[in-house]
Formats: sequence, structure tokens, C-alpha cells
Amino acid sequence: MEQLSGDILQTKYALDTFYFLVMGAFVMWMAAGFSMLEAGLVRSKNTAEILTKNIVLYSIACVMYMLVGYNIMYGDAISSMIPGISFGLGGDNEAAAVLAGGEDAPYYSNLSDFFFQVVFVATAMSIVSGAVAERMKLWAFFAFAIVLTGFIYPVQGMWKWGGGFLDAAGFLDFAGSGVVHMTGAAAALAGVLLLGARKGKYGKDGSVNAIPGANLPLATLGTFILWMGWFGFNGGSELKVSDIAEANATAMVFVNTNMAAAGGCIAALLIARLWFGKADLTMALNGALAGLVSITAEPLTPSPEVATLIGAVGGVLVVASIIILDTKFKIDDPVGAISVHGVVGIWGLLAVCLSNPDATLSAQLLGIGVIFSWVFVTSFIVWFIVKAIVGIRVSEEEEYEGLDVGECGLEAYPEFTQTRK
Amino acid sequence: MEQLSGDILQTKYALDTFYFLVMGAFVMWMAAGFSMLEAGLVRSKNTAEILTKNIVLYSIACVMYMLVGYNIMYGDAISSMIPGISFGLGGDNEAAAVLAGGEDAPYYSNLSDFFFQVVFVATAMSIVSGAVAERMKLWAFFAFAIVLTGFIYPVQGMWKWGGGFLDAAGFLDFAGSGVVHMTGAAAALAGVLLLGARKGKYGKDGSVNAIPGANLPLATLGTFILWMGWFGFNGGSELKVSDIAEANATAMVFVNTNMAAAGGCIAALLIARLWFGKADLTMALNGALAGLVSITAEPLTPSPEVATLIGAVGGVLVVASIIILDTKFKIDDPVGAISVHGVVGIWGLLAVCLSNPDATLSAQLLGIGVIFSWVFVTSFIVWFIVKAIVGIRVSEEEEYEGLDVGECGLEAYPEFTQTRK
Amino acid sequence: MEQLSGDILQTKYALDTFYFLVMGAFVMWMAAGFSMLEAGLVRSKNTAEILTKNIVLYSIACVMYMLVGYNIMYGDAISSMIPGISFGLGGDNEAAAVLAGGEDAPYYSNLSDFFFQVVFVATAMSIVSGAVAERMKLWAFFAFAIVLTGFIYPVQGMWKWGGGFLDAAGFLDFAGSGVVHMTGAAAALAGVLLLGARKGKYGKDGSVNAIPGANLPLATLGTFILWMGWFGFNGGSELKVSDIAEANATAMVFVNTNMAAAGGCIAALLIARLWFGKADLTMALNGALAGLVSITAEPLTPSPEVATLIGAVGGVLVVASIIILDTKFKIDDPVGAISVHGVVGIWGLLAVCLSNPDATLSAQLLGIGVIFSWVFVTSFIVWFIVKAIVGIRVSEEEEYEGLDVGECGLEAYPEFTQTRK
Repeated sequence: MEQLSGDILQTKYALDTFYFLVMGAFVMWMAAGFSMLEAGLVRSKNTAEILTKNIVLYSIACVMYMLVGYNIMYGDAISSMIPGISFGLGGDNEAAAVLAGGEDAPYYSNLSDFFFQVVFVATAMSIVSGAVAERMKLWAFFAFAIVLTGFIYPVQGMWKWGGGFLDAAGFLDFAGSGVVHMTGAAAALAGVLLLGARKGKYGKDGSVNAIPGANLPLATLGTFILWMGWFGFNGGSELKVSDIAEANATAMVFVNTNMAAAGGCIAALLIARLWFGKADLTMALNGALAGLVSITAEPLTPSPEVATLIGAVGGVLVVASIIILDTKFKIDDPVGAISVHGVVGIWGLLAVCLSNPDATLSAQLLGIGVIFSWVFVTSFIVWFIVKAIVGIRVSEEEEYEGLDVGECGLEAYPEFTQTRK
Repeated sequence: MEQLSGDILQTKYALDTFYFLVMGAFVMWMAAGFSMLEAGLVRSKNTAEILTKNIVLYSIACVMYMLVGYNIMYGDAISSMIPGISFGLGGDNEAAAVLAGGEDAPYYSNLSDFFFQVVFVATAMSIVSGAVAERMKLWAFFAFAIVLTGFIYPVQGMWKWGGGFLDAAGFLDFAGSGVVHMTGAAAALAGVLLLGARKGKYGKDGSVNAIPGANLPLATLGTFILWMGWFGFNGGSELKVSDIAEANATAMVFVNTNMAAAGGCIAALLIARLWFGKADLTMALNGALAGLVSITAEPLTPSPEVATLIGAVGGVLVVASIIILDTKFKIDDPVGAISVHGVVGIWGLLAVCLSNPDATLSAQLLGIGVIFSWVFVTSFIVWFIVKAIVGIRVSEEEEYEGLDVGECGLEAYPEFTQTRK
Repeated sequence: MEQLSGDILQTKYALDTFYFLVMGAFVMWMAAGFSMLEAGLVRSKNTAEILTKNIVLYSIACVMYMLVGYNIMYGDAISSMIPGISFGLGGDNEAAAVLAGGEDAPYYSNLSDFFFQVVFVATAMSIVSGAVAERMKLWAFFAFAIVLTGFIYPVQGMWKWGGGFLDAAGFLDFAGSGVVHMTGAAAALAGVLLLGARKGKYGKDGSVNAIPGANLPLATLGTFILWMGWFGFNGGSELKVSDIAEANATAMVFVNTNMAAAGGCIAALLIARLWFGKADLTMALNGALAGLVSITAEPLTPSPEVATLIGAVGGVLVVASIIILDTKFKIDDPVGAISVHGVVGIWGLLAVCLSNPDATLSAQLLGIGVIFSWVFVTSFIVWFIVKAIVGIRVSEEEEYEGLDVGECGLEAYPEFTQTRK
């Protein structure tokens, strides 16, 4: 009997671990989504540079989070695991301990947890790259990436998901509308304020010039990749699938994630149609992403219909925010990342109160205030220091010629754009 | 003992639910596949519009199926679930009921079923967008999408998968060669007949002009995405994986799906080589897709070798059909969707008889006749009404300038195509 | 009690089978990755041809491995399975036999194993297509693909994974740094030597001309696809997930695979920066892939930190190798495949000795020598015969005009490149 009971426990442990790994692979895939989205929304002369940024920031995030960040965020139980060259298979949960451990025993591999967490910090950093596109120095960006992924992100992550004071205060953020998305947006905003707008974006006469992205199929592909990856992002954040209640919950999270994206896409399209008279594809894409961000703080308790509406509100907000930040505040965010992940991230955190009876507005506001302040202030300081030491903005010549040649020494589309010269 | 038995049941339920969710995510991914395929096969001036169509039709399909379609199709058991703002986690299967339910108890989450089903209706609608590309009004298309996904598709889906009269008559369609693919093609055909060919496609002298797609890497990517997503489409349609027999069956479905695509690709390439003297990439792509459609009605009972041959026949058929529809019937289908999903879908339904002893030719013909008639006639009526009220075709000027500027107010590749002007 | 024990066994069998299928689908996805990587790194005039090569070689690999290769490689236990038209569901493991079989009973579906294996042989063949790009005859390439996937690959695969003499000699290769990657590279090298360099690549005065790829976003997408797919490639090669120890091991493989790629990407970027003064995107991409190849021979026993370093060494090696092969040896490999998969594959096989106490340098060297010699010599013979009979190189005119028009009768980007003419 005990043998059988242990066998079942082993099987559940395996299922939960496998679930984590598959969901984590989906989230890793979001790195490709951000790359394609951003590469599609910048001009061709800055495309190779933003691709370089994206694949390297993902790599930096993995290394820094392994070396430092994971320990800061979840240090208690697993501080001996990572880093530590001696760590091997013995360092994960021993089968005997799991089987003897009763209710409180770990029910999935620690390393599967690390894998799932590490792709989240990369997501946060990916958000930054789009907002500072087309004028930031590549290596200044990487310097910032080291600090954000190794320190700034893990500290606030610890406050919530590591069992810190925001968690104790009742702040709710299921999969990271705040911990991941608003964090990325706050860091981006600090960078953009210090960096200034792209040349030619805002005229001296107050005019605002649209700078269209060079490759909208890529941007659409990126959005679909993110949509798909988000099933891992939210679906994996249920953290367990191996019994009836958890399986039902995971299914609900999948459905609500999908419906919120659909709601956001349709709402943004309709608003853009009313506002500009056209079915603006980039707004539909940002609307879908806004729907996803909206539902990320609470994809479990709303009904699918309510999730659709929460996403739809996000879709409306993102269109309004993109226009207002651009035309009123002259904040130049080439891909709309601050609106999608920041403004809508805040909406997502507030929307938790609509369906989760455990949520309180005060705790949500506290979490928003604390995370935003922490990330914005520390990021501002880091960007400021980097600016003082090596500078964060490329020269006017390089900006005019394109960052691809200046930073990467090559062109993204050498044959298609040569005719322009 | 009872505790252990319940634990196993919970684990199986979790595994089957997780399987549904992962397979469903793969099918959702097919929406990206159709987008890339179609975006690659149209001209650059109509690319942003077809991308808009694709992401929005997916969103519309999700909302309509949630509000109306799912209830029509599977209304009996779950009519209280969706829609209903009050629906929450309580609405899924209660653990206690599952454990007490014996053989007939549900063995996976209802919401995972909804998720898996909703991505299927989006697939059907995606088929339509390619066939009517480059000349249809965007909002007329969306109006049609609402009716197809909310009503036309679910009604015929109920007849087969909802346990309706086609199912009772012995009509077999494992994963939807008919219910999904032929349905999409029949709706597309009705639209194309009312819409007419693109300007310049057919000369007054009877000449047929090829209009090459602008971006074949995108089309190839789309085909690979569809190929991958099809493992979810067919593999998930086994509906259960959690015991030895079901696991073996699911594996067989994966293998046969893959082999049929390979067979279709090679056969189409060879036929195109014989016919045109060249290794036509677009035919190889359509051949792979035809192989996938061919095997979708019965991916379980053929051996892998027979599955390869079934796919190969599909690959030959699709090349012949594309040429004949284009040159003989002057039916202008820019991406070959009517051939791939319609003609080959019928082949797939007939091919069930080759390997499944439960199939009868008469039942298969009945299903083909009923589904095609239902979808074609209702679609024709809807297209006709939309045409009468708002029109379905853009102006000649807009068609010449491109739908991107006319419908979406932007260009897909603004920097690469500007030199043409 | 026996009933319960059987139920658990069934569930484990289902979980391991499902794991195989999902991991296999990830590996299949790598076919798309190679397609996009190679399509992005060649010139636009040869893009459709390389896409055709990639989707068709995948199809050929599936058919040949089903008909011949799988039996050669794993013939003993399953020789009656594939091929054989009569094979059906009955041919997989009978539930009764599994339940009665004890420790040695199969614990997953044979067909899931076939599915997982067949996508590996396609990977090996995909490696070849990049190296011979832009000047090889399409149908000569397909002829070679038939032999490699049906015979050359399975024979050496049998020596190691089929329990042959290399396995008996203690040669270790977890997921195929040698069996898959070095195999692909050795076959490619033989082809490239017989084929010669592209026109214009090396001047008579000894000059070396860079021929930039036409579409770096595609190449980056391809790299991300490969990175994601590699979780299946290595993660699935653990071959079991259904108990605590195996789940932990699978998680370790995922983490190490990811970290090695990150290490390789960063190291290659830094080396390229030091060497060329620029953050060369293509080197960062090749660095990530080199990190993945490096860890493939042993992703289980290193700690994540050591895995990162193993990948980083691979990243340095690949940059050096690409430069040296190009400038010193004048070996023209448009995508760097021989360096990424061959040179770094050898490094990966040697690196097993760093963390796995069961490895011996002599056995690793034996495996490297045997596999390389076998694949290189047999491939050389096959390429030679094909060259003698039909030729392997296109005419100078066709090479100048582009293989797309010559071999495929169409263009990959007809609207974007027309202005060049």
C-alpha cells in the first residue's frame, strides 16, 4: 500500500514538473515574440541592432538570474542551490525526502521552478528594449540589463512572490501584471526620459511625426508568439496541475488568457476605427497584448465573459495611452511598450478587485506604488550612472545612418534597402 | 484503498486535462500559421490587411463561440456553463462528482474542452480569409466571420461531434477534414463566387495571369507552423491519453499526421516538377498541407505507410485542383485554400473507408453532401445579404492601390516597396 | 491492489508517451528553425530554393527513416513494426503485456519512440542544406538526402544508440552532439569539398569576400526556434520523466540546455566585439547555437554554471572556426554549419569528460573518429557518384541569376528585389 501511495506521489511529482517545463518553454518562446514584434515595429536600419539586443538580453537575464537573482528572490529554501559549481543532480529534491515529507514536501523539481522563473525575468527585460529602440547605445543597454535582471527585478519579485512584505500585505498578482510587466515598463520609462525622443519624431513646431515600422508581418508574428507563450506565462503560474481542482484551475487560466486577448484585440480595433477611421493593424496587435497584460494579475477568478471584458478595457486603454503619451507627453516609445505593459499592467492589477474577493483596492494600490517607485527610481539611477560614464545615446550621425551599421557592423536587409541610398 | 484509487483518478484527470490544454495551444498556434501563409502568398500592398483579418477573425471566433457557438454545438451537458457571467470555477467538474461518478464521470476539465474546441472554429474561419484575399472589404469579412463562427460552423459541428444525426448515421470524421476544413472551404467558395476574381487575374482574351506572393519565407514559415500545430489538431482529437491504449493511439495519430504531410509534400513536388518542369515551392507547401488535410478524417487506423500514401494522393490532388480551378473554372483563390481544404478535405473523408472497417462510403458521402450543402448555402445567403447591404468588394481604386492603405491606413513594408512608386 | 498497481503503470506509461510526443513536436519544430536560419543567411535570389530544400528534406527524412532507417538503427526489438503495410495499432505494446512485463516491460509507446527518432534524422539532414547553399543542384541534394537519412545516419546511430559497438566501448553522447550534429557537419563538409565555393566568394588574389545574408530577422527567428526546439531535443533524450529522479533529471537537462545557449551567445558576442569591433548579430546567433551543440552530448551531469561555461567555450570556438575555415582553408559554408555542428560538436563530445565520471577521453575520441570517418567517407562517395552521374553544381548562369528561378521557377521576394534588375 505504501509502495502504491509512493508511486502515485512520484507520478504526480513528474506530471507537475513536466507541466512546469512545458509551460516554461512556452514562456521562453516569448523572447522570440518580443524580438519579432520589436524588429517589425522599428525601421529597417535599426532592425539588426534590436535583434541583437533581444537575444543577448535573454542570455544576460539567464546568467544573472542564475548567479544572483534567483537567490535574492527565493533565497530561503534554495540558497544552497544556485549558484554553486558543485551543484548537481543531488541538489534537487531527494526522492526519499519527497515521499517521506507529507503535505509540505516539495511536489515538483526545484530546477523546473528555476527554469520557469528565469524565463520570467527575461520577459521583463524584453519589455525595455522596445521602448528605447532606435537611439540607445547597445552596450549601455546591456549594462542596464545586468542590473535589472540581477538585482532590481529580483528584489521586488521577492517582496511579492518570494513571500515578502507585499505578499503579506495582501497584494495580489497571479502571474505578474505588476511584478513582470509594470516592472519592465517602469524601467523603460526611466530610460526613455533620460534618453529623449528619436530625431525627427517631434518637430520644433509641436508636430508629431509617425515613424512606421518596417515589417508588419514580423510584428504580427511576434504578437501571435506572445499570445501563445502567454498560455505558459499564466497557465504555468497556477504552479500545480496534478489533481482535479488544479487541473480545472489551469484550464480556466488558459481560457481566460485567450478570451482577454481576443477582447483586447477587438476593442482596440474598434476604437482605432472610430478614432482614426481605419482598421489599424498595429493597434489591433497592441490591443491583443493589452488584453493579455490585463488578465495576467488575475486569470483564475473571472468568468470567461468577464475576462473578455477586462481584456477589452485593456484594449481601449492601450490605444488611448499610446496616443496620449505620444501627442501630449511627447514620450517616444517606438513600440508602445510603456502603454501595453505599464498603463495596462496597472489596470490589470486593479481589475483583480473585480473578481477576486480576497483582493482589496488598498493592497493593490500599495503594490502598484511600491513596485513602480522601486523600479522607476532604481532604474533611473542606473540609467543615469551609465549615461554619465559611457553615455546612453548614439551620435546623431549613427542615429541617422542606423544603429545596425554603427553598432553591429551589418544590415538586417542588405538587399532590400540598398536601392534607397 | 479508496483514497489511492481516487488519487489515481485525480492524476489521470489532470493528465488528460493538461494534454488537452497543450494540444489546444498547438492548435491556437495554427492561427499564426494561416496568417503567415496568407501574408506570404498575397502581394505586399495587401499584406497588412490580411494580417488584420487573421488576428481579428481569431478573436471574433473566440468571442462568438463562447457566447453562442459552443452551446449550439455541445449544448446538452454544458448549456449552463458558457455563456453566463456568473460562471466561475464552481462551474467545472466538482472533484467529488468525478470521484464518485464511475465509468461515465467526466475525465477532464470542461474548460479544457472548451479551449480545445474554440481553436478549431478559428481554424475553419482562417481558411476563408485566404481565398477572398486582395479584394474583399475588411468589415464585410468580419460580419461574415460573426455568423460563421457563431452559427454556421456550430450547427454542422453539432450534427457530427455534438452527437447529432450525422454521427448517428455513421459518418466518420476524426478531427475535422469535413467539420473544419471542408466547412472553411465551402464558405470560402460561396464568398469567392459572389466576389469575383482580382483585377488583372483573368484577361478578356481568356488568359490566366499568375500573381506571385510577395514573401515566400513567410509562406513557408506558415506551413511549418501549421504542420506543427496539426499535431495538436489531430493528436488532441483522440480526446484522451491517460492509459496504455489511448497513449498508443495518440502516438499513432502523431506519426500518421507527420507521415501524411511528408507524403503530400513529396508528391506535390514531383507532380509539379513533371507538370511545370520546376520544383515549385508553393506547390510543395500546399502539398504538405494537403497531406495534413487528407489524414485528418482518420489519422488513427491507417498504418504509417498507408498514411503516407493517403497524404501523397492529397498532394497530387491539390496540384491538379489548383490548376483546374484556376485555368478551367476561373475561380480566383489566391492561396489555394478551396483546393487544399475543400477538394482534399473530401478526399480525406472518403479515404476513411480505406483503413477504418467501421466506415461506409454511403455515410461518408452523406456527411460530405450535408455539410457542404449546409455551409455553402447558408454562407452564400450571408455573403449575399452583406453584399446587398454594405457591399463585399472594395473599389477598383482601392484594389489597385492596395487594401493596406485603404482599409488599414498603413503599409506592411513601407520602406521596401516605396521605390516602386 | 493489483488493479491499482496496473492503473498507476498505465498512467506512467501515458505520461512518458505524452512527454515523448510533446518533446518530439518541439524537435520537429527545429525543421522550421533551420529553414528560417538558412533562408535568412543566403541571398534573396537563392531563398526559395533553400526553403524548398528544407521542407522536402524533412519529408524525405521521414519517409526514408520509416521505410529503412529506423529498422537499421533499432532493428532488434521492433523490426516487425516499420515498415510493414499491415502494421496497425495492434503492433504497438499490448496493455496486457506491459502490465505483466515487470521491470523490463516497455514503458512508453513504440510509435512515440519512432516519432521522437524520426525528427532527429531530419535535424541531421537539415544541417547539410545550409553548408551547400547557393550553388548545389536541388535534385542532387535530394538524392543525397535519401541515402543519408535511409542509410548513413542510421548505421552510425545504431553503433551508439542502437546498442552497437560504440555504445559498448563506453562512448557517451546523450542527445547527439556526435550522432546528429557532427554527422550532419561531416556530410556537409564532404559535399562542400566536392562542390567548391560560391562564385565571387574568394578572389584570385586570395581575397575573401563576405556575402551577407538577405534577411537577418528570419535568421534570428530561426535561432530562437532552434533554441526552443532544443528543449525537446535534449529534454526528450532523457527518455523518461515519470518518477521523481527522472523528472529532476529532465528539469536539469532543460536548465543546462538553456544556460549553455546563453553562455554561447554572450561569449560569441564578446569575442566578435573584441575581434571585429562590432556586436555582430550573426555571430551572436551562431554562438547561441554553438552553446546548444556543446551541451548536447552531456546536458545532465554538469551544474548549470558549468553548462554555461561549456556553452561559452562553444561560442568562442564557433567564431574562431568560422573565421579560420573561411579565411585560411577557403571552405565556403554560407551559414557556418560545419563550424556550429562539426567543430563544436566535437567540443561537446570531449566536454562530456568534464562532468561525467563515466566518460573516458579514449572512448570519446574513438566515437568522434569512427562517426566522423564513417559519415565523411560514405558521404564523399555518395556525393561523388551523384556528381559523376548528374552533377551537383548548377551552371554559372544559374548561380548568377539565382537558384530560385533556375530550380524553382519563382522568386522568394518578387516585389522587393525587382528594382535591382
